[in-house]
Amino acid sequence: MTLVRQEIGEVLRDLRQQKGYTLRQVASRASVALGYLSEIERGQKEASSEILGSVAYALDVPISKIMHLVAARFEAVETVVIPDTVPAEFVANFDTGSYTNTH
Amino acid sequence: MTLVRQEIGEVLRDLRQQKGYTLRQVASRASVALGYLSEIERGQKEASSEILGSVAYALDVPISKIMHLVAARFEAVETVVIPDTVPAEFVANFDTGSYTNTH
Repeated sequence: MTLVRQEIGEVLRDLRQQKGYTLRQVASRASVALGYLSEIERGQKEASSEILGSVAYALDVPISKIMHLVAARFEAVETVVIPDTVPAEFVANFDTGSYTNTH
Repeated sequence: MTLVRQEIGEVLRDLRQQKGYTLRQVASRASVALGYLSEIERGQKEASSEILGSVAYALDVPISKIMHLVAARFEAVETVVIPDTVPAEFVANFDTGSYTNTH
């Protein structure tokens, strides 16, 4: 199961790197411990709403943008369809494949 | 400051009510204590990523939809512009208003 904190972490790291900020700069500006911010980015810690607000402010990114990016990452995962039957074209290829016993 | 947990709470309650589910039904299906779910809906408690996942499943709503709705609620707040000077038309109205000292 994909977890919200993992996707939030990825989005926060992407945004920070896009802006060319170091972890130290963002942690300092957001008044968050550097190790804690690092754990948030790696999806290992939940960010409280207050800390998420501070980090968004430090990155100069509206929370709406962060939430939209998180939503987009979930969409990408949710739209992967794992069929519960083998597709017909795969069966056909398999039947005519070179490993068919022909003797 | 608008907090993520408040907007998540509003979104979860809206979705639950749209589907006609009671708090008890969703709490039971998500294996979450009823009082805890109620606090999450009121924005008083942070939902862990695991619990958010369970509640989304119980509501039969993808997390991407919840995140998009949260983003939309933030957008509505973020686009409210509070001017730091009094608009000219307000000054004009005030100057010509009935409370002007005319004697």
